[in-house]
Amino acid sequence: MPHTPVWFMRQAGRSLPEYRKVREGVGMLESCSRPELITEITLQPVRRYGVDAAIFFSDIVVPLRAVGVDLDIVPGVGPVIAAPIADWADLDRLPLLDPGAVSYVDEAVRLLVAELGATPLIGFAGAPFTLASYLVEGGPSKNHERTKAMMLGRPDLWAALLDRLADITAVFLRVQAEAGASALQLFDSWAGALAPADYVRSVMPASAKVLAAIADLGVPRIHFGVGTGELLSLMGEAGADVVGVDWRVPMAEAARRVGPDRALQGNLDPAVLFAGPEAVDAAVDDVLASAAALPGHVFNLGHGVLPDTDPGTLARVVDRVHAATVR
Amino acid sequence: MPHTPVWFMRQAGRSLPEYRKVREGVGMLESCSRPELITEITLQPVRRYGVDAAIFFSDIVVPLRAVGVDLDIVPGVGPVIAAPIADWADLDRLPLLDPGAVSYVDEAVRLLVAELGATPLIGFAGAPFTLASYLVEGGPSKNHERTKAMMLGRPDLWAALLDRLADITAVFLRVQAEAGASALQLFDSWAGALAPADYVRSVMPASAKVLAAIADLGVPRIHFGVGTGELLSLMGEAGADVVGVDWRVPMAEAARRVGPDRALQGNLDPAVLFAGPEAVDAAVDDVLASAAALPGHVFNLGHGVLPDTDPGTLARVVDRVHAATVR
Repeated sequence: MPHTPVWFMRQAGRSLPEYRKVREGVGMLESCSRPELITEITLQPVRRYGVDAAIFFSDIVVPLRAVGVDLDIVPGVGPVIAAPIADWADLDRLPLLDPGAVSYVDEAVRLLVAELGATPLIGFAGAPFTLASYLVEGGPSKNHERTKAMMLGRPDLWAALLDRLADITAVFLRVQAEAGASALQLFDSWAGALAPADYVRSVMPASAKVLAAIADLGVPRIHFGVGTGELLSLMGEAGADVVGVDWRVPMAEAARRVGPDRALQGNLDPAVLFAGPEAVDAAVDDVLASAAALPGHVFNLGHGVLPDTDPGTLARVVDRVHAATVR
Repeated sequence: MPHTPVWFMRQAGRSLPEYRKVREGVGMLESCSRPELITEITLQPVRRYGVDAAIFFSDIVVPLRAVGVDLDIVPGVGPVIAAPIADWADLDRLPLLDPGAVSYVDEAVRLLVAELGATPLIGFAGAPFTLASYLVEGGPSKNHERTKAMMLGRPDLWAALLDRLADITAVFLRVQAEAGASALQLFDSWAGALAPADYVRSVMPASAKVLAAIADLGVPRIHFGVGTGELLSLMGEAGADVVGVDWRVPMAEAARRVGPDRALQGNLDPAVLFAGPEAVDAAVDDVLASAAALPGHVFNLGHGVLPDTDPGTLARVVDRVHAATVR
């Protein structure tokens, strides 16, 4: 590429007026199951910003719903699970994912690849720990008490749950790559809540299983979680080609932790985008300077685009990254 | 001390039935302004657990209210500020703190010191950044957009706000120490949301001003924030004698970052207390092992006691730490 590539987690979403328009009257889960709508939403930020990648519009609970989990995405709350998982018998409600159950994903990816031309499409799935937290807590959780209680107090049940989720996730990612996605991002939203020893013992094996199961596809595997400064090297070792970094860790320090064999993605603080053009420019330059010596850098935010972000500010960031890194 | 000292952040609080009983029908702010009630609540966990320190029962917004800020603590939400701070004129609503305006704090500390005997009392205040976030956002915030917008976009206004808050906080801590508190904890709840460079430039000077202003009192200064793995050395350098560590950073690694001149406090994951006695025992032992080589260690949780925690589990932790570290 002639410059440092740049895209934004959640670049397709509530910050865009054209997104809010096409989502009017359409629930989140429904919007994730209609190929034309997925395609339109995924393309919107590519058209508007000229970002260097599209990220497949979906939600981490889509594969859970596809295997039959009774859940809904409640506006202002997040995913809510009708019957949380608490015991061995509950695992029966988590069968393996039949690729045919997500044919709308396959179809949307094919439509997107045809539309995108040279712009790569990044496929997307939630990681086993994050999915398990929703399933065990019954919804979003600040402290993950029930999840950690199962993880530490019932390690056999926990391991079986995560192993099942790893298999489901691997199928969901494989569908996207086989339909033409050029890269795959495994998103472990809540991994930053874990102590490193707990991550190693109780979470990393399942994430590694997912990443190993898609290794033969030959597409780069991106692995990200927010607040994961202490886990960066482990998330790389789990089998990532690119490790996502949040804004709390300077890129140069992240590179030291991850080592020279993997590229890094990140890490502008999404809240900085509210501080006015001069502050935004300075922060973009700081990220580029901190990442200057890296063997591979994909510019991104350190977490998803916040809903009240001004799209003009994101356009400014894209232009500045491109202009500053022309080779 | 004959063993590693242990106490718990938020040890006085909703997890205790005796606390819920005395708080019946009494609002949070009212409970923080009645000396007898403060004393009773502060003593409850000392009686029940035999912890090695009492932590003064208060709330970080108490000194703000004492200088006249119109605010309330809304159950299930947190502090809500009637008129958020957005410009220079708003600083007029933040005068310096007159110690006479918190005479109930002075009185409660004196009552407590008389009751506690040899058990030390730790005084308590919120740090300038965390107070500023409440004042600028108008309440609790997940992403601190407005706060960071002011911090980066209006650095002079921001610096003046933090400087004023540093002065207020220093008076509030001084009142507690002069009434007999044996140590002081500066609690920067939200500092973990900051990139290190932003912390150094825009937050650390105010925290350092607080800690310097109380240095002459000759009591140990504890400095804590959750999710502050990347800030640990800076929070020490700000002027702390003891740095609090959350559960994401192993104690041995925290010691490497903070250096040999300061003691550490921490760092059992509060969610682990839900995982059953065997898992709790193992986690306590892991913390003690990771901290074994430290020159100074105060056992604590890596964040406050969660409201649904079983008090019997906290009692078990105290007993185990004491038994394991008899010297």
